Amino acid sequence: MGWSLDKRCLAVSGGIGGAKLALGLTQVLRPDQLAIVANSGDDFEHLGLHISPDLDTVMYTLADLSDKEQGWGLAGESWNFLDALDSLGGETWFKLGDRDMATHVTRTRLLAEGRTLSDVTAYLCERLGVHHALFPMTDDPVATMVRLRSGELLSFQHYFVRDRCEPVVAGFHFDGIETAKPSPPLLNSLRDPQLAAIVICPSNPFVSIDPVLAVPSVRQELSDSRAPVVAVSPIVGGEAIKGPTAKMMDELGMPRTALAVAEHYKDLLDGYILDTKDRQLVQQVEALGIATTVTETVMLTLADRRQLAEDTLNFVDQLQSRP
Amino acid sequence: MGWSLDKRCLAVSGGIGGAKLALGLTQVLRPDQLAIVANSGDDFEHLGLHISPDLDTVMYTLADLSDKEQGWGLAGESWNFLDALDSLGGETWFKLGDRDMATHVTRTRLLAEGRTLSDVTAYLCERLGVHHALFPMTDDPVATMVRLRSGELLSFQHYFVRDRCEPVVAGFHFDGIETAKPSPPLLNSLRDPQLAAIVICPSNPFVSIDPVLAVPSVRQELSDSRAPVVAVSPIVGGEAIKGPTAKMMDELGMPRTALAVAEHYKDLLDGYILDTKDRQLVQQVEALGIATTVTETVMLTLADRRQLAEDTLNFVDQLQSRP
Repeated sequence: MGWSLDKRCLAVSGGIGGAKLALGLTQVLRPDQLAIVANSGDDFEHLGLHISPDLDTVMYTLADLSDKEQGWGLAGESWNFLDALDSLGGETWFKLGDRDMATHVTRTRLLAEGRTLSDVTAYLCERLGVHHALFPMTDDPVATMVRLRSGELLSFQHYFVRDRCEPVVAGFHFDGIETAKPSPPLLNSLRDPQLAAIVICPSNPFVSIDPVLAVPSVRQELSDSRAPVVAVSPIVGGEAIKGPTAKMMDELGMPRTALAVAEHYKDLLDGYILDTKDRQLVQQVEALGIATTVTETVMLTLADRRQLAEDTLNFVDQLQSRP
Repeated sequence: MGWSLDKRCLAVSGGIGGAKLALGLTQVLRPDQLAIVANSGDDFEHLGLHISPDLDTVMYTLADLSDKEQGWGLAGESWNFLDALDSLGGETWFKLGDRDMATHVTRTRLLAEGRTLSDVTAYLCERLGVHHALFPMTDDPVATMVRLRSGELLSFQHYFVRDRCEPVVAGFHFDGIETAKPSPPLLNSLRDPQLAAIVICPSNPFVSIDPVLAVPSVRQELSDSRAPVVAVSPIVGGEAIKGPTAKMMDELGMPRTALAVAEHYKDLLDGYILDTKDRQLVQQVEALGIATTVTETVMLTLADRRQLAEDTLNFVDQLQSRP
């Protein structure tokens, strides 16, 4: 790693895919060198609880508490609450584990006391031993709505979890985004003079990254930052590693390629990281005015996560040393 | 059992002790013959949840789901939520089991939707297979406050659970009682022309029964009812079977006797059921103008509960056949 101790990185993450690279970055950057902003557009109120799925996935992943098989939730979780809720006729489509419930109850209670989501996230991270900064894109309520081809608007978790991404999508809308303000730690990070890399993790561009970019001023701040913005392609060989990204691209009439994702981010990107399977796309991406590098982006092991983090930061260094 | 099918009984219950006799009564009376009103003065908001300890104890007991050893909570409960809450620095003095959480979450959600506590209790009972009517004394918020000898006012659960009844009490106050209305099913039951017995269960007189009696008009309705009012002494041989009744009597300067409890209820009672250990008090209780019967009141087995229920109803019959 050529990264000097005075350089800092901001990672933009959704849930499972983003959390993998975020974890890799924590392996090579010290807590004062890395900040992670997570999508809070998929936050929702359920059973009276404020649930922040992406923040929790990143938090549990960084705390080494996550269920590594499914990617979300806690390892060794029990489901007695949900089982009893079922007996009481409650809604059980969103899987709330017994230990996970403590996170939601605590978050809901602290928010009700008037604390911000950024504060609450910092508190939870501290209690769980997460040392790198993690915060939401905004402390204001934003709700990702999925516009279906049928014309119906579906709240994100209903689309994503309850309906298992089965409906055909036509677009997305972020309720409340117009009046949302970037969270204070996000603004601090973006304006940090030592910020030297902005990494868009391989998360879903439409429902994980776009909500972050859609918070007023955030896209502009990213563009204006002296730090290069690089993205890791969430599409490898025409497939998403996890989740509905590829299916959404089909339904939105986009080619199911890493190139199409680069085009989606367009002018925002200084660099783009393609998987070795997508080597043939280098020229087309570079034709967009975006620098590229090619490496293994599929992260199966912790070593893979760390390696991709190193490759990403080295790529940023190359971009910075160019004239 | 001499009880004809057109006679009905209203049982007034607190938590553990009352639930035992209530369960006994369900063994001898059909669902349309028995209604149980429980104290809701020990309800409280905790971690953003509306918790109704006495209603839950009776409900779980009647559903045959209760932990028979401790008397409260669910049998075979797991504690993973509470354990995780502890890791997050949350308040864990009130023991919330994983399955029990489903009750509190459901109740809180339904109350937030605008349903009454009576409605919610009926809903939960139906889901858990409780066929006899169970309802709170009021749908309005009432909070039992414990006045300590030190002058401090302590909310009931803080006194009872968190501080394990250790502080010395000087009295009790039921916050909100002045404007509380009896719950509709309680009023219905009290005004039912077929009501033939009102049974005050062996619960704590000060913090379980008195809150019910203190709801405006309830004590008067009980007095005015043609149905005899009988109480089962919660004190046996100078001791409470469970809970702080005897300790409270000491601290309030009352003799620690079944007689003192009868005097506490005074003009309300038509009959009083003494344990065989307290046979020597018969004359003194009768001198108060209260009829007595003596039987085994300590309920260890289900058969004991049923037997005491039968003895109680037979005693009521004797009272009614008197001139």
